[in-house]
Amino acid sequence: MKPIHLVPCVGGIVAASVFAVAGANDDAKPKTASPIYGVTVPDKYRQWELVAPAEEAEPLNELRAVLGNVVAIKAYREGTLPFPDGTFLAKLAWKHVQSAEFESASIPGTATTVQIMVKDSKKYAATGGWGFGRFVDGKPADEAQHETCFACHEARVQGHDYVFTRYAP
Amino acid sequence: MKPIHLVPCVGGIVAASVFAVAGANDDAKPKTASPIYGVTVPDKYRQWELVAPAEEAEPLNELRAVLGNVVAIKAYREGTLPFPDGTFLAKLAWKHVQSAEFESASIPGTATTVQIMVKDSKKYAATGGWGFGRFVDGKPADEAQHETCFACHEARVQGHDYVFTRYAP
Repeated sequence: MKPIHLVPCVGGIVAASVFAVAGANDDAKPKTASPIYGVTVPDKYRQWELVAPAEEAEPLNELRAVLGNVVAIKAYREGTLPFPDGTFLAKLAWKHVQSAEFESASIPGTATTVQIMVKDSKKYAATGGWGFGRFVDGKPADEAQHETCFACHEARVQGHDYVFTRYAP
Repeated sequence: MKPIHLVPCVGGIVAASVFAVAGANDDAKPKTASPIYGVTVPDKYRQWELVAPAEEAEPLNELRAVLGNVVAIKAYREGTLPFPDGTFLAKLAWKHVQSAEFESASIPGTATTVQIMVKDSKKYAATGGWGFGRFVDGKPADEAQHETCFACHEARVQGHDYVFTRYAP
């Protein structure tokens, strides 16, 4: 996907929120936030429930799992669209590695990225109500990468409130 | 793996526990339990935390996720081996399907099996302390399939308390 140029009012969030905390899942420590959106990695995301696993082919070659906070999981189970404010989704990704113990199995290798989507329909009105954050080793990727997030979600899954992942029962 | 013939005392569990309930995660309803082990599907397993995703190649061609109850997750995070009694692991499997919305992504299709491991070092002393259950649409697979569980786990991951899956951070 080609990057898009987001409207200035969205870009303007950057300076104000570099050290912002994003929602009830964070503690009081300042954190590094994503460019454009000011999204941080919630502290307890690894304890959220599973929405679904996925696989990403070459060149990324990853196993992935999307987890959701309580608001997200409730919306998925009840089929609520659009997702309500307070929805947090976390996509965890690892390198796709052959198991040494079972020939036909692939398992997670090194963790690669954690990607966060946060629903705040006012704060992120210009991007479908969603804020995005892409993190490598806890540090946000650069602004150019974040400019591609919404363009891709808008082009492909606007009909599912800009969210790719469906709940795997 | 070739099936093994489990010792008679383990096979003898079958008759007594077809309608047994297996642990604190079950309600009071009688359920169909796995042959040999008498393991049932815990009610709340889908809400357990993620241990790790995985992929299984052809012919099964599945995406998978292993979830663990509170006892399991605590043991994983603290590196406790062997896993304590009360550990429950659930392996969920779905057909591996090409995403219609993103060319390089594969996502869960139809659910195929739910497989449960339960640690009870006394009840399952003959099989490393583990009881096994393999379920399709909530119904247990046959005895022949359950005869293969421990043989494979014993041959391949005895050094990790008979558990294949490691925690994906």
